[in-house]
Amino acid sequence: MVVFDPSLMTDMYEYTMLDATLKDGTANRPCVFEVFTRHLPEGRRYGVVAGIGRLLDALEDFHLDDSDLKFLADRHIVDKETVKWLENYRFSGSVRGYREGEVYFPNSPILQVEGTFGECTLLETLILSILNYDSAVAAAASRMVTAAKNRPCMDMGGRRTNEWAAVAAARASIVGGFKGTANLLAAKLYDLPAIGTAAHCFTLVHDSERDAFESQIAALGTNTTLLVDTYNIEEAVKTAVEVAGPELGGVRIDSGDLAALAQRVRNQLDALGATNTKITVTNDLDEYAIASLQTAPVDSYGVGTQLVTGSGAPTCAMVYKLTERANNDGTMQPVAKKSKDKATAPGAKLAFRSYEYSLADCEHVISGSPNALRAFQPGEGWENLLTDFVVDGEIDPQFRGHDGLMAAQDYHAKALAKLPITAQSLMRGEPVIPTQLDVLD
Amino acid sequence: MVVFDPSLMTDMYEYTMLDATLKDGTANRPCVFEVFTRHLPEGRRYGVVAGIGRLLDALEDFHLDDSDLKFLADRHIVDKETVKWLENYRFSGSVRGYREGEVYFPNSPILQVEGTFGECTLLETLILSILNYDSAVAAAASRMVTAAKNRPCMDMGGRRTNEWAAVAAARASIVGGFKGTANLLAAKLYDLPAIGTAAHCFTLVHDSERDAFESQIAALGTNTTLLVDTYNIEEAVKTAVEVAGPELGGVRIDSGDLAALAQRVRNQLDALGATNTKITVTNDLDEYAIASLQTAPVDSYGVGTQLVTGSGAPTCAMVYKLTERANNDGTMQPVAKKSKDKATAPGAKLAFRSYEYSLADCEHVISGSPNALRAFQPGEGWENLLTDFVVDGEIDPQFRGHDGLMAAQDYHAKALAKLPITAQSLMRGEPVIPTQLDVLD
Repeated sequence: MVVFDPSLMTDMYEYTMLDATLKDGTANRPCVFEVFTRHLPEGRRYGVVAGIGRLLDALEDFHLDDSDLKFLADRHIVDKETVKWLENYRFSGSVRGYREGEVYFPNSPILQVEGTFGECTLLETLILSILNYDSAVAAAASRMVTAAKNRPCMDMGGRRTNEWAAVAAARASIVGGFKGTANLLAAKLYDLPAIGTAAHCFTLVHDSERDAFESQIAALGTNTTLLVDTYNIEEAVKTAVEVAGPELGGVRIDSGDLAALAQRVRNQLDALGATNTKITVTNDLDEYAIASLQTAPVDSYGVGTQLVTGSGAPTCAMVYKLTERANNDGTMQPVAKKSKDKATAPGAKLAFRSYEYSLADCEHVISGSPNALRAFQPGEGWENLLTDFVVDGEIDPQFRGHDGLMAAQDYHAKALAKLPITAQSLMRGEPVIPTQLDVLD
Repeated sequence: MVVFDPSLMTDMYEYTMLDATLKDGTANRPCVFEVFTRHLPEGRRYGVVAGIGRLLDALEDFHLDDSDLKFLADRHIVDKETVKWLENYRFSGSVRGYREGEVYFPNSPILQVEGTFGECTLLETLILSILNYDSAVAAAASRMVTAAKNRPCMDMGGRRTNEWAAVAAARASIVGGFKGTANLLAAKLYDLPAIGTAAHCFTLVHDSERDAFESQIAALGTNTTLLVDTYNIEEAVKTAVEVAGPELGGVRIDSGDLAALAQRVRNQLDALGATNTKITVTNDLDEYAIASLQTAPVDSYGVGTQLVTGSGAPTCAMVYKLTERANNDGTMQPVAKKSKDKATAPGAKLAFRSYEYSLADCEHVISGSPNALRAFQPGEGWENLLTDFVVDGEIDPQFRGHDGLMAAQDYHAKALAKLPITAQSLMRGEPVIPTQLDVLD
């Protein structure tokens, strides 16, 4: 049994920077941090924001218990004064950003975190861990769902990623449009449809395939899905329909040439009168494999490895950068680093998406002085991309839990539909709309 | 605050298979399951087993609390009788396998799990999640450590993977030979050296770089590492030595041409008398980048994205397959599936590594009847690769915690040193030794 809070899911430097800035006073400077990425994974047309609901959960849980404080003190990571400050730590700032399910592009200001330097700097690693992984999975899921058209995709990838990442991946797959998950903890935590068939071991532990099918039907009813590729698929399908009758819910094929096999199995099922029996395929599917199965008589896809590893892009390169902070006189000062190839754009940002003929044509990122930003008038029909998630420490509940997640799935489908259709191409290419950065005087 | 046990970190079908087999009696059949992989990631010469200590922790924690049981019942995933069985679930079987840190190859029987079908089948996803991710990270870490020769590598990758995966990655990096981690939860849980410098935001929140350096030195002493690439590296190095004196511990460079910059900074530091000040580099390093820095005056490497994503291979394709189960008369029966391209080798296995001139030359995997295996005599000098981790439900403590982890690091270094030197090449190629599967009559 493990009890945890996320307060040590951080890099050490966040606490040593807190310690140093508490001593020199800059820990109390109001700041704006921004999450963005300099580039999408190579060839991708858009990114998908995911993890916002989890991030808000983590923010609520982010406080240090006695054993955390003792660890920081014993290791001399922070001094006694800082321990005292941390005892009462609760994030009291504000967070706004792109909605969960929103699409994003290079330099989109995906998240803005406002608060004192001390309270914001502690969140860097946690925020990035959540957004980088969840968004990677959601982006892969979104492409797979596009490739699958109206056929449902199901997450079966838990075994191919860290056991906790598996839960996050199941959730992120829903953002991208998946319809269910094999992962029970995700199903429990987020009230999601849990799905499953049977493993080959289930067939093998029985004296015969027929025994296994009979057992599964007896326990789960005829609407269950039988795994038919343990020995010989043709014989298995015959046995399956003999055992379950033509009302058999489905069969799963997990090996071989899935298109050819699906066609043979469909014909066999139809000949046996099992015309409503569904065919599920699994076997290292990615968006390209799914697209190649478009003309095959497949009813649903179970996706594993390629989902949970982001289909070649297991992380998103999002970074968390200070863009503005107060001077001694309290005025806000845009700041930026000038590191080679990694320079940042100073100042808090506004973000809008403009449309032409109802299709997105540009991401507008606007920076400038606080006064200039307040006075800024967006173009006609520009959509504001920034939503408040946390205001002065108060977390808006609508973005969390099951409801927040389903809203994100819905939001994503709509956001994707408003992108030029090139976004739905699996071909490698540039981001489907440009990001224009305007600096106001 | 979250309290959890790993019992729902499973795919639903594990519970529905349990339910069905409890009804038909096969849940009680003694079984042997095996973890193996059909192939290494493309071009890799060896794999590294990691996660054994975490797996043993999870095994101890694997039992269902009331809310888990209620979830399974409410969703009708299992029936009342199965709920009753699950109330008392504790794994009472045995687990043996390759030591943590051991190298492995295609078809190495990495883990063998013995027990009833019911108790073993529940563990599939959890075991695979842990081994697949941890081993992917450890393999990447091992290659990076080889490339770094005697220079220490440090984990700074937490922000580029799921927040829990980050903890597992930090731990797995130690198996591969890393010397420390930025991740505080990993440092706390496994008593590891925590490392860190400062972020660019620390420089930016101060009115000047000099202010930032003075603050860091005041809080952390002159032995700290200052980040010098926020604005202009040459000026920053000058300021750093002015502020800290020639005793400055180190500087970090996080952008640009690291080899050229390290050389310039080394010369500048030496000219300023800071001849013992170390240079740490970070910036999307992988094993190839590290190798290319061999001749640059770099003292240590901070590795992020490429570590936690397995440097192109974020998972290991390990599977968990039933290889043997009891018949009704109690005799053990080797079993195997015959799925196209995914057939398995029946029967429990023995595993040995043979050596020639003190270098490994072959992995021998032996299967056959229980009697034949008992009678098998390995060749002279063959090393037995299977170690008992759990015997009849009793978990051996030596493989867990800090000590187990450091033993794994040590074990890995020795196992790698006994492989032909080709293993240490970063060039793509075949597994460095073959796996020979012998079936005894």
